[in-house]
Amino acid sequence: MSALNELTASQVVRAIEDGRTTCEAVTRACLERIALREPQVGAWEYLDPAQTIEEARALDAGPRRGPLHGVPFGVKDIIDTADMPTGYGSPIFAGHRPAADAACVALSRRAGALLLGKTVTTEFANITPGRTRNPLDLTRTPGGSSSGSGAAVADAMVPLAIGTQTTGSTTRPASFCGVIGYRPTWGHLRTAGTMEASGSLDTLGILARSVDDVVLYRDVLLGVPPELVHALDAAPRIGFCRTPFWNQLEPYTRDLLEGAAAALAGAGASVREFELPSHFAQLTEAHRWISGFEMSRNLAWVVDRRWDQVSEAFRNGRLTDGLGCTFDRYRQMLELAERCRLELDARLADVDILLAPAAAGEAPEGWLPIPHPWVYMIWTVAHVPTITLPVFTGPNRMPVGAQLIARRHEDRRLFACAKWVQSRLV
Amino acid sequence: MSALNELTASQVVRAIEDGRTTCEAVTRACLERIALREPQVGAWEYLDPAQTIEEARALDAGPRRGPLHGVPFGVKDIIDTADMPTGYGSPIFAGHRPAADAACVALSRRAGALLLGKTVTTEFANITPGRTRNPLDLTRTPGGSSSGSGAAVADAMVPLAIGTQTTGSTTRPASFCGVIGYRPTWGHLRTAGTMEASGSLDTLGILARSVDDVVLYRDVLLGVPPELVHALDAAPRIGFCRTPFWNQLEPYTRDLLEGAAAALAGAGASVREFELPSHFAQLTEAHRWISGFEMSRNLAWVVDRRWDQVSEAFRNGRLTDGLGCTFDRYRQMLELAERCRLELDARLADVDILLAPAAAGEAPEGWLPIPHPWVYMIWTVAHVPTITLPVFTGPNRMPVGAQLIARRHEDRRLFACAKWVQSRLV
Repeated sequence: MSALNELTASQVVRAIEDGRTTCEAVTRACLERIALREPQVGAWEYLDPAQTIEEARALDAGPRRGPLHGVPFGVKDIIDTADMPTGYGSPIFAGHRPAADAACVALSRRAGALLLGKTVTTEFANITPGRTRNPLDLTRTPGGSSSGSGAAVADAMVPLAIGTQTTGSTTRPASFCGVIGYRPTWGHLRTAGTMEASGSLDTLGILARSVDDVVLYRDVLLGVPPELVHALDAAPRIGFCRTPFWNQLEPYTRDLLEGAAAALAGAGASVREFELPSHFAQLTEAHRWISGFEMSRNLAWVVDRRWDQVSEAFRNGRLTDGLGCTFDRYRQMLELAERCRLELDARLADVDILLAPAAAGEAPEGWLPIPHPWVYMIWTVAHVPTITLPVFTGPNRMPVGAQLIARRHEDRRLFACAKWVQSRLV
Repeated sequence: MSALNELTASQVVRAIEDGRTTCEAVTRACLERIALREPQVGAWEYLDPAQTIEEARALDAGPRRGPLHGVPFGVKDIIDTADMPTGYGSPIFAGHRPAADAACVALSRRAGALLLGKTVTTEFANITPGRTRNPLDLTRTPGGSSSGSGAAVADAMVPLAIGTQTTGSTTRPASFCGVIGYRPTWGHLRTAGTMEASGSLDTLGILARSVDDVVLYRDVLLGVPPELVHALDAAPRIGFCRTPFWNQLEPYTRDLLEGAAAALAGAGASVREFELPSHFAQLTEAHRWISGFEMSRNLAWVVDRRWDQVSEAFRNGRLTDGLGCTFDRYRQMLELAERCRLELDARLADVDILLAPAAAGEAPEGWLPIPHPWVYMIWTVAHVPTITLPVFTGPNRMPVGAQLIARRHEDRRLFACAKWVQSRLV
């Protein structure tokens, strides 16, 4: 057996069920890893090891609580917790104590998962980074805004973490840190108790180290009995979507994706080029105005009462942008987004998934949280489920993800295809 | 001039601008009305007259703050306030102090509106009523869930109040209390800081005593400069929609609606029967499963940690219903709802508005909060904007509303038509 902190959630569950380990031992292994690495990685905003170990002992002393019994997890610090502070990545809310757990936290705990702490987020899940570094190369960005969630899972501090996505806040850290990032069909997983950045775009995100863990955790967060995803009966039909931004990808990323498309065709998949209508490129504009309009209204109290405690980059960027957006422009963008959603539904009817870039390339040096956002924006605005798989390696031995996309509501088909793809590419 | 507490918001703004009164005088008039009537009506969950008068004086001492300068308002107690407790209508959260104002509260205050207090909501904006009575007849229900908001506006305690709507929680108290109730196109008005009941259905709602006030307040809540709605150039094209539930309305309600359709045709409107496809009746099922599925997940912390403090009616009703809903059923209902939305968009292309019932009849005796929910459900699930006008009187001299409905995003067209309709019916 690997070190306990390196197990996937599904392996943890089985090992505890079989009596090969205990919740306490798994928790201690994760806490030891954190103690060792946290000074460099900076993935956590809040930890309470003593409380966590006590909870682990309580789990060990009781009956099996649910399908994640004894699995340690972390949640992005824009998600409310009743027993830990929630600061939204802003000094304005430092030490704030919500009255209840967010829906996703309560559902995780109901399943027996053990909350280790709150992971670092960029300020208000936006552009200004926290202190997290990429655990694979401390000179590089982990990606944002779910920086701590991505880094903690990548560094074997926890097998599961919850992030969110409004632009590419799950896809990006997954690709940069070399873990799996799942962004569900918009609307499926409840965001009650999670700070709204831009409700028309926001979803939760799951960061994990195996597709099976994503499948399991999604069912837990849906509040339904878990169901395995079975292997495909036949090789999938794959649309290879270079996106309108193909020329802005690093040349090695283009090579890696073309190589993957060829390898999947070689393994039996039907692979064909899938071209988006050219007006889909406008979805980056839709994203800009929808997110700016909504964020600047959602944060009205902060704008009016705490403006001087907001970072300059956020103030002068998306907030000012959004405050200047007219309602007519916002409404036009909502309507454009809906038209594209319906068009994409129709065009996805004769493929099972799309294969697309998850990032322009490896994580850049420095701590810039949001390079090349156009890679994710189309899918975020289109409300489709996507999963990012850590299947490529760039010229600096850093991971580069491949993004798979399915039709809205077809999250389970996405998982089945992701398992097939992963097994053929790794 | 009427008594200050009886003025509409637009009248208050003008009277203060013209120097005919002050913010303090208006506030005192509202507080006096509340002191007189609150023991019977029970519209308020929280009031702090001393703080309010101090704020009114500060407004009087400063420059004009915005388009609602000096207008007292109330907000439903599922909406967060930084300086007043927010209890969500549940003993579980009694005394809870949020860290920030909800978006709608901050935007109101930015415009110079003066928060008088928190209005009574049913428990978690659901079925179990608070103590509010109908101010027009204390033996009757005010309607829920925005009970206090409807009653406070009807009783001239405030000119404006914010409610919410997940089923008919704005339309119903508007019809029962004889005020105007506006439910915006889903998604337009930010609900950040407002308890999510069922995100796929939730909107804010505005309770007011004039259509102009609704127009003004909507712009404030959108965070855009206010723009008047001008009179129509030509009489509107009206679809008379009896709904699939026509036979369940009180006979006098059917007569009142038919009389209104005839009167509007007589005044020059093009009025034609507008029949919904029969499968729209299934939207009541869609409502049941979508709202149940989402509410039961959103309240996971309450379900797991405070179940014994939840009312029996809610526990045994929507919560148990929702906890038992499978994901497949939920997903099918989401897809049905979207299909009907698009179908309704298309069918509304050749009318300006629909005329439809807002309630089965007058407010019933007793305190049942949700009789006849099917009247509102179709429109709520369809995400269309609706406005309820207090244009009818029932056999017991209680008000009965007429509901006008427009295409999604056509809220301003709805207002222009509502002004035309109101002037022809009153």
